[in-house]
Amino acid sequence: MEDYGRFLAFLASSLLVGFVSVILSLVWVLHYREGLSWDGSAAEFNWHPVLIITGFVFIQGIAIIVYRLPWTWKCSKLLMKFIHAGLNTTAMILAIVSVVAAFDFHNAGNIPNMYSLHSWIGLAAVIFYSLQLFLGFAVFLLPFAPVRLRAALMPIHVYSGLTIFATVIATALMGITEKLIFALKNPAYSESPPEAILVNCLGLLLVIFGSLILWMASRPHWKRPPAENAKILNPIGATPEGTEAESTMTNSSNADKSDLRSNTEAARKQNIKFDEAGQRSTM
Amino acid sequence: MEDYGRFLAFLASSLLVGFVSVILSLVWVLHYREGLSWDGSAAEFNWHPVLIITGFVFIQGIAIIVYRLPWTWKCSKLLMKFIHAGLNTTAMILAIVSVVAAFDFHNAGNIPNMYSLHSWIGLAAVIFYSLQLFLGFAVFLLPFAPVRLRAALMPIHVYSGLTIFATVIATALMGITEKLIFALKNPAYSESPPEAILVNCLGLLLVIFGSLILWMASRPHWKRPPAENAKILNPIGATPEGTEAESTMTNSSNADKSDLRSNTEAARKQNIKFDEAGQRSTM
Repeated sequence: MEDYGRFLAFLASSLLVGFVSVILSLVWVLHYREGLSWDGSAAEFNWHPVLIITGFVFIQGIAIIVYRLPWTWKCSKLLMKFIHAGLNTTAMILAIVSVVAAFDFHNAGNIPNMYSLHSWIGLAAVIFYSLQLFLGFAVFLLPFAPVRLRAALMPIHVYSGLTIFATVIATALMGITEKLIFALKNPAYSESPPEAILVNCLGLLLVIFGSLILWMASRPHWKRPPAENAKILNPIGATPEGTEAESTMTNSSNADKSDLRSNTEAARKQNIKFDEAGQRSTM
Repeated sequence: MEDYGRFLAFLASSLLVGFVSVILSLVWVLHYREGLSWDGSAAEFNWHPVLIITGFVFIQGIAIIVYRLPWTWKCSKLLMKFIHAGLNTTAMILAIVSVVAAFDFHNAGNIPNMYSLHSWIGLAAVIFYSLQLFLGFAVFLLPFAPVRLRAALMPIHVYSGLTIFATVIATALMGITEKLIFALKNPAYSESPPEAILVNCLGLLLVIFGSLILWMASRPHWKRPPAENAKILNPIGATPEGTEAESTMTNSSNADKSDLRSNTEAARKQNIKFDEAGQRSTM
């Protein structure tokens, strides 16, 4: 891997920032708020930020970059797809439980549901995320989808994944803003009590975590290399639409380096690239 | 251009969504709020959402994709750099004026500044945006930076631009959340009065606008094609670090298609690609 040390530094930073974010969310609800329980009280609501940050931000972020961990490149692609899908499924379950906690708390206290921009965009994010997971499972994990369909859907899968991830972080920032305004009275949010400073820092860490993940996910030279034993799927010279599009955001740029090799070598690489476009679920 | 019709559909959609967002921000402050003035009152604050949505979201979004408009490809790269820099400078000025409006309003009403997560991330976004503009000007527009430095900084410039853009939209969503909670009393935000519905829809449109711009900016086949008269800058076979990295997120993937051409042709393209990496300011 090119820049292995730099990759490790980014990975370590994102793990640290993500881990500290989860810890800060726990400090917030356990030290400054009402703790955690499941009884319709504010302590049930507190599962909402904790599970969103743990699942929908941290675990989703790791799921996005899991193909890029160099020590997984010796594992089969199928195993990595299961890990990618498993992490995303875990994130989805935690997100759904956290939404149920928020609804339960609202219903118990006769607070209306679904009136805020946070709730609109948040629910849209959960729905699109579930749809993305379902489609990803049907197209890239199950063995039924034709290679051309996989190649055509790959760039959309990658783009949707990164856009939903960014939207989830934006929604978390709105949620933090709402909660601090509603919960902090005497001293108010505007008086910057320690809780406000702590949770603002948590919000900043979420932005930094998202930025680190997006950088790692979009470096072409950190992409999992194509399988060397890929079978030839396509006549030489034919470049289906999905092949080019697949390179979007995460192109390995291997083709850039092959210019000076023989035509045969170039054709072989092109076919491998197409095979990859069809076979890999993301990244 | 590949998929010209689809590009036009995305462009028209993003212009429409951006334009409607600006209109909705005006309807919000002129019909539901105190209008616009510059006297320290709430009407001065109202410049804040209007100018942020007009400048920091809409104009910045257009600046990001301006290189991709196919009818500009016959214009010189230098002219397009000036347009890109000019649009971004306009966006920065509007963002700074809008921040001054918010500070003026706070100071006149003895409301503390810089206590909220919105203000922290918003100020960071303005600072990083200004830094990005200054560095972009110094490295890509002025003729002093060596080509290798341009090539090395290009992927960072592209990544920073898109990340700052996404962060600005997230900050706008937090600002909308804050303002609706503070301003709507009797009926409150939670009672979903027409103003709340209108401004929630405005927030949704901002997310859609951002998603459309990010899709257009990251399609490799919609990138401005390399200049055909590019001079040979580099010995054949040498691939400097920046060349590969430049392809990140916006790789034209032209190299993918050149595999079957002659070695000489491939080498020529490689040099053009390197030249592009060094010469273009973004996208």
